[in-house]
Amino acid sequence: MKLDILSIGDELLIGQTLNTNAHWLSKELNLIGFQIRQHTTVSDEEIAIISALNEALGNSDVVIITGGLGPTKDDLTLNILTKYFGGKLIMNEDVYQDIEKMVTGRGYEMNELNRQQALVPDNAKVLRNKNGTAPGTWFEKDGKIVVSMPGVPYEMKAMTSNTVIPWLKEKIELPVIVHKMIYTQGIPESQLAEKLEDWENNLPNTIKLAYLPSPGRVKLRLSSIGNNRQEIEATINKEIEKVKTIIGKNIFSLTEDELQVVIGDLLRKENATLSTAESCTGGYIAHLITQVSGASDYFKGAVVSYANETKIESLGVNADDINQYGAVSKQIVEQMAIGVRTKLNTNYSIATSGVAGPSGGTDEKPVGTVWIAVASEDGVVSKTFQFGKDRAINIERSAIAALGMLRSLIIQ
Amino acid sequence: MKLDILSIGDELLIGQTLNTNAHWLSKELNLIGFQIRQHTTVSDEEIAIISALNEALGNSDVVIITGGLGPTKDDLTLNILTKYFGGKLIMNEDVYQDIEKMVTGRGYEMNELNRQQALVPDNAKVLRNKNGTAPGTWFEKDGKIVVSMPGVPYEMKAMTSNTVIPWLKEKIELPVIVHKMIYTQGIPESQLAEKLEDWENNLPNTIKLAYLPSPGRVKLRLSSIGNNRQEIEATINKEIEKVKTIIGKNIFSLTEDELQVVIGDLLRKENATLSTAESCTGGYIAHLITQVSGASDYFKGAVVSYANETKIESLGVNADDINQYGAVSKQIVEQMAIGVRTKLNTNYSIATSGVAGPSGGTDEKPVGTVWIAVASEDGVVSKTFQFGKDRAINIERSAIAALGMLRSLIIQ
Repeated sequence: MKLDILSIGDELLIGQTLNTNAHWLSKELNLIGFQIRQHTTVSDEEIAIISALNEALGNSDVVIITGGLGPTKDDLTLNILTKYFGGKLIMNEDVYQDIEKMVTGRGYEMNELNRQQALVPDNAKVLRNKNGTAPGTWFEKDGKIVVSMPGVPYEMKAMTSNTVIPWLKEKIELPVIVHKMIYTQGIPESQLAEKLEDWENNLPNTIKLAYLPSPGRVKLRLSSIGNNRQEIEATINKEIEKVKTIIGKNIFSLTEDELQVVIGDLLRKENATLSTAESCTGGYIAHLITQVSGASDYFKGAVVSYANETKIESLGVNADDINQYGAVSKQIVEQMAIGVRTKLNTNYSIATSGVAGPSGGTDEKPVGTVWIAVASEDGVVSKTFQFGKDRAINIERSAIAALGMLRSLIIQ
Repeated sequence: MKLDILSIGDELLIGQTLNTNAHWLSKELNLIGFQIRQHTTVSDEEIAIISALNEALGNSDVVIITGGLGPTKDDLTLNILTKYFGGKLIMNEDVYQDIEKMVTGRGYEMNELNRQQALVPDNAKVLRNKNGTAPGTWFEKDGKIVVSMPGVPYEMKAMTSNTVIPWLKEKIELPVIVHKMIYTQGIPESQLAEKLEDWENNLPNTIKLAYLPSPGRVKLRLSSIGNNRQEIEATINKEIEKVKTIIGKNIFSLTEDELQVVIGDLLRKENATLSTAESCTGGYIAHLITQVSGASDYFKGAVVSYANETKIESLGVNADDINQYGAVSKQIVEQMAIGVRTKLNTNYSIATSGVAGPSGGTDEKPVGTVWIAVASEDGVVSKTFQFGKDRAINIERSAIAALGMLRSLIIQ
């Protein structure tokens, strides 16, 4: 079943906004069995939108459109689509109430532009938007489906997952595609590939393997397509068991849970608590941990000790040791971990201190040098890493490495 | 002058690789005066490539193609293009030497696949590749230009900057394009549009306006095209001055700097310091602030007080008040802001306390209720917000709102 993705917006064509929507949609829709034929990005102009839509409908069964649905004048998509399919815009009471609730909830009054957003085509089904004011729409004609959604990524993603995918599955018979993920940490892609080479060469040819690297992690995806889900799953599971015997200790999840979720589950099982003391990661580890709903069950808090003064006064780090060893050192990061564990009275703690860059590096401690410590009632363990030159990636890699060390400490 | 960007590769269509090439090329080529008409992404299949190329050449003067030039069987682009323009592949001695130098430099010997990469069309100019083995090619026909480059981003970028852009400038007389951004905060898109309606209606028709929303912020983009950069900039700047008189207090940047960068500059100018006390934002504000290189000049640290116990012990919040008012309250968030400012000895501080969700809401304080306080030597200011149901978005909006309040406090 072929599918086209059509992105609308001048901001994409002038290179201001990166088109992450087409990428995310491709992944999600490919996962449920669609063959993505083409991505097309056009400007907010009627002639461009109609020409692209004709092209897409001439070649695919389903067309997913994002963008051009805001309340402002440069957003034309809904009008164009409604006309294209021979309908007209009418007021929708449910959508009006959705918008009113959102606008007044934010402390504003409904204005004319908000009211206009409650106008929806009389020839389409409406996709309610829980995260924004522009609804989506679902047109059908001659056995083909055209879906239009807002371009704001989080609105589009929620609408796709909650409504569009379930409706597509109901409407269209798709082949069974099974994807299973193996999340690994603490081993670079090239090392992983080398260790898995023999296994990979002997994979059944019905199974496709992909390496999906991100800072500090590599995710392996095993995919297979067919008609019988049980059979496919059994074949893939057999291969996953083989992978476990080769790189078991690097695997932290077979359920697509990120490290912070896995750690949350482990802590909850032990009825244990956690705190962090962060210098180079600047609160990012605490942010990852508190992304997980219910983190307050085990996370008591963090001290982001960016200044040495804060390390000394809020964590009890020894000032002389900072002078002697420098803030980026085994001695200091261990004192930070012990300090926050004592101060916040938790079972476990994490501490980081490093040179995130791009400035601040020295010959002895170049940009990318990071010390990480994890502490428990049994004492403190620390390790040094040498990452790269990019500040954002160094922060991310430090956080993932720290969570990986904590996980090892908890399960040991 | 219209230009199409054509990306070739299955990895883009299954959502495995994000198409950063089209984004980067758009930015670079728009800056030198091209109007990017369309991005198209197709698979490594002859019929798809030819159909997309026909479409692009039918509408644009220049087509830039990336991808499909690797040494393996699934890479067909060069053969297809050579045939499309009626030529044939011939051995190119310079390219052969480029490839040989690269391959042997990496410690390998030339193999058959490498030799084949030295075959180039006899009807195109060759673009040498200093960073990889696949050369680029430049076809011209009926006054139109088609450029084909490798899909590997750093190879493509070097080839574009070093050869393609200079050649395009030589060949084509291009207009001047100017884009200017207005970053706003604290006002939703529809309200902003209402306030700006009269101004928008009176905009010179040479200027295009776009609204680009993200959680808690709306960015306005004014674009214009012409021949005289000074004139265009003067026209746009005049309009920006008008916008400033209408929504001045919501504008935080005219230089494309995010709030954390703007605040960093303000603090550095005042020689002032900052700390944060975060409950519902869980360290995310500290993370945003420390994303900025050099933040250690003004950011001393944060206390993420997720547990009430941490609020009491690390920030000096009154335990009885927590019992009486609840942790999500004016009283507590103000005590947190004052507490962290005193504790970490900073000029300014930020505090947040709210129900990020999805659980934890009550009738009185539903999910999305957030209290934010900012403190300085003049005292403490607090405000309550009612955001939505999505945890990640509530965290983001709380952080942006808090940074907005801090900015207002600093500049008042």
